[in-house]
Amino acid sequence: MPKVDLNSDMGEAFGPWPMGDDTALLRVVTSANVACGFHAGDPDVMARTMRMAVENGVGIGAHPGFPDLQGFGRRKMEVPHETLANMVRYQVGAAAAMAASVGGRLRHLKLHGALANMAAEDAGMARVCYEAALGVQPDLVVMALAATEQERAAKSLPCAVAHEIFADRAYEDDATLVDRRRPGAVIHDPARAAARMVEMVRAGAIIAESGKRIPTRIDTICLHGDTPEAVAIARAVRAALEGAGVTVAGL
Amino acid sequence: MPKVDLNSDMGEAFGPWPMGDDTALLRVVTSANVACGFHAGDPDVMARTMRMAVENGVGIGAHPGFPDLQGFGRRKMEVPHETLANMVRYQVGAAAAMAASVGGRLRHLKLHGALANMAAEDAGMARVCYEAALGVQPDLVVMALAATEQERAAKSLPCAVAHEIFADRAYEDDATLVDRRRPGAVIHDPARAAARMVEMVRAGAIIAESGKRIPTRIDTICLHGDTPEAVAIARAVRAALEGAGVTVAGL
Amino acid sequence: MPKVDLNSDMGEAFGPWPMGDDTALLRVVTSANVACGFHAGDPDVMARTMRMAVENGVGIGAHPGFPDLQGFGRRKMEVPHETLANMVRYQVGAAAAMAASVGGRLRHLKLHGALANMAAEDAGMARVCYEAALGVQPDLVVMALAATEQERAAKSLPCAVAHEIFADRAYEDDATLVDRRRPGAVIHDPARAAARMVEMVRAGAIIAESGKRIPTRIDTICLHGDTPEAVAIARAVRAALEGAGVTVAGL
Amino acid sequence: MPKVDLNSDMGEAFGPWPMGDDTALLRVVTSANVACGFHAGDPDVMARTMRMAVENGVGIGAHPGFPDLQGFGRRKMEVPHETLANMVRYQVGAAAAMAASVGGRLRHLKLHGALANMAAEDAGMARVCYEAALGVQPDLVVMALAATEQERAAKSLPCAVAHEIFADRAYEDDATLVDRRRPGAVIHDPARAAARMVEMVRAGAIIAESGKRIPTRIDTICLHGDTPEAVAIARAVRAALEGAGVTVAGL
Repeated sequence: MPKVDLNSDMGEAFGPWPMGDDTALLRVVTSANVACGFHAGDPDVMARTMRMAVENGVGIGAHPGFPDLQGFGRRKMEVPHETLANMVRYQVGAAAAMAASVGGRLRHLKLHGALANMAAEDAGMARVCYEAALGVQPDLVVMALAATEQERAAKSLPCAVAHEIFADRAYEDDATLVDRRRPGAVIHDPARAAARMVEMVRAGAIIAESGKRIPTRIDTICLHGDTPEAVAIARAVRAALEGAGVTVAGL
Repeated sequence: MPKVDLNSDMGEAFGPWPMGDDTALLRVVTSANVACGFHAGDPDVMARTMRMAVENGVGIGAHPGFPDLQGFGRRKMEVPHETLANMVRYQVGAAAAMAASVGGRLRHLKLHGALANMAAEDAGMARVCYEAALGVQPDLVVMALAATEQERAAKSLPCAVAHEIFADRAYEDDATLVDRRRPGAVIHDPARAAARMVEMVRAGAIIAESGKRIPTRIDTICLHGDTPEAVAIARAVRAALEGAGVTVAGL
Repeated sequence: MPKVDLNSDMGEAFGPWPMGDDTALLRVVTSANVACGFHAGDPDVMARTMRMAVENGVGIGAHPGFPDLQGFGRRKMEVPHETLANMVRYQVGAAAAMAASVGGRLRHLKLHGALANMAAEDAGMARVCYEAALGVQPDLVVMALAATEQERAAKSLPCAVAHEIFADRAYEDDATLVDRRRPGAVIHDPARAAARMVEMVRAGAIIAESGKRIPTRIDTICLHGDTPEAVAIARAVRAALEGAGVTVAGL
Repeated sequence: MPKVDLNSDMGEAFGPWPMGDDTALLRVVTSANVACGFHAGDPDVMARTMRMAVENGVGIGAHPGFPDLQGFGRRKMEVPHETLANMVRYQVGAAAAMAASVGGRLRHLKLHGALANMAAEDAGMARVCYEAALGVQPDLVVMALAATEQERAAKSLPCAVAHEIFADRAYEDDATLVDRRRPGAVIHDPARAAARMVEMVRAGAIIAESGKRIPTRIDTICLHGDTPEAVAIARAVRAALEGAGVTVAGL
């Protein structure tokens, strides 16, 4: 029987500014990727989000990003590898402490935004980040985008790897994402997102727009948290998976 | 035979800006209070400083401060206790991770700047900070300014406490520091600083300007690192203490 | 015939985080206090907000605050006067440039958050801030909280002063605000806020909870922008004032 | 008789951290490029630096950079053009206000670090930055690296352009800089830097390592301020130019 984790970015508020409906999402997902203060998520937000995750039995992940609040960590930055490693260590260490303070413990690591995008195309960079995080906590599960350089980097390390696909993004034949500017690149319809996820999990493959199947392990599905339809898509995906006999459970 | 630790603030560089002569000081002191990124000390600086501390066999301390780079954490801020606790947890967690990455481990905690000054007059605030840090790592030694509210707060907690005095500051009869603006408040002469420290450690007391003795445990002496005479004072104090038969050793 | 300006804080978004309904408020108020990047309001947000203000014929004000994004400029900071002056100059200069870039021009100055609260009790501090702003643009109208040290400081300077009262806050007999924690301190009912404002503007006085009248000029009314009922209160106040024959117009 | 300006980056301190010997350099150069707070230079540092520039009769320039203190604005960031324009407007406006507060006025604009490097290869990006700055103050002289896309962008705008060469960097045949990692790329010998500058200014050309001459106007020479030999090179260049009959004067 297939089994899959559902993850979502959370704790992306900062100071007076809220973001997303973490309370609702925490009732649906099984893993929370918690921002670590560099691109979002001040220490109060981290504590609050992780406390809710613990209360809902949701796994806590460190979700480090570039030091860029205004750009929300979505602007590429050219950072030397050693600096990158130290940035990741710092954020993962901070996240580990915040998790402990609410009775939790980090279970996974997932890179954020431009850092994640750059790492998806550059295994060296991905590896630097993953090694830095594993140096802080060796039993972290590394979430890696399936069929990207992230996956390649994660597999080269002595760690558990969770292969990840997106619920709301269309795929090209080479397993990259369809450009956001193209029609159909982002899926807004909960029913459609749900049906695709069931299909892919059953097939054990990413199914591109063309219909092409790219076989891959699928351990976790990324549900975005910051769109209007986020909660509806999350619920639809979970319901459809469970209806299809897939076990939804944390890493 | 009396035994005392020598501590100094370090890792107070940030990005392109150096500060102090950490390399020289690390050959003299036995504890390094390492800035944690909020008032100084970016992740690269933390890693570099802690690596040098490990190489020199110097104990590593987390040295959290207010989030205020321009003010170097020396400007008072009015922060709710829960936010304060989360700020300390975040910084101590980050510091613990950086220490581990260079083969070290945090040994102590010391508050920085305005945060330390406010805590020296407010045991409630000090306690919030210390409890937060101990929640991250329960075996941290808490450095507390002798005969202040810091000491009172630290002693109320189930932790090891290191009672601290200053090498280069004159004391009032109530064990507070003489106002910096008064002549003689800051001691610039290495020989004089050294003689005073020997006298106080032998006496087991803070000796005020008036000659009054305020009995206290003295576990560690704070040597400032950011003045021109810093290294000279540090060396003189250490040499004088050892010459007087005092063992200089880490916590 | 009495005439009054309606002002509201705006442009309090930052990066990915929105705040308040500036679009709706700009159709009601006559002055917009625009955050300047230190406590909220990055350069993009400033440009966007000021462009909308120009399009709606709403006066643009610089709204400087402490450098504290997490605390939204609401945490007191102890800053030397010269540093404070430079912080205000910097923010006002930046705001003047952003206003010019969208075809506007600064009309007024209003202090934000903890900076405003501290200045309301400390005329020296208020004067330092106002002089710094007037040094950048001498024809700025200074918004000063009526019957506070802000007013006293503003009146001592060669500048136009707009005396300000709050639409949604109850007053004590000494013209200070009723503590937020006391029942009735904050007025949530649009009709009640509107009726009070008509009464006070007509009376030319702040009317305290006790009924006591504190005579004062009233040039502008502060409408908060970040509460759920903000737009409703703003509309009700404006409609009631106009219905009572009061001219609502910019400074 | 040829005439040339000498410029240097200044005001690159931040909070407690000094950088460079601005006092000494201000006696040699005729233009100061003052950091605007994003990559260095807090408001106090800006005021202090500009006051000294005014006292020394040195022209003040706005020197905007990326919002990246840790990286000192030297890390490339991918920022949309409109955001870039607003960042430049904000910094130039702030700088204009600080200059006015010390009795000065901005005379020129020069981009900093990675922003400058990216603009030297991308005329579209350079143009966005220059137009934004000129929108704040239309009579700014734009300093543009001679024979780069910066120059091309500046010449396409209705503004005065100062063509700039480096005193301490070797050039390739296409007028780009020799890679820093190659021997001889950076010139440390004051006498050699001085002789080269006299030769290039007389020739009206950049002279590459190969001896090739690339004809160009030379209006200003960049003297770096943050190296140990900075002041010595600056003095040697100025003395040699004056000895050769070149007038050293501001823009």
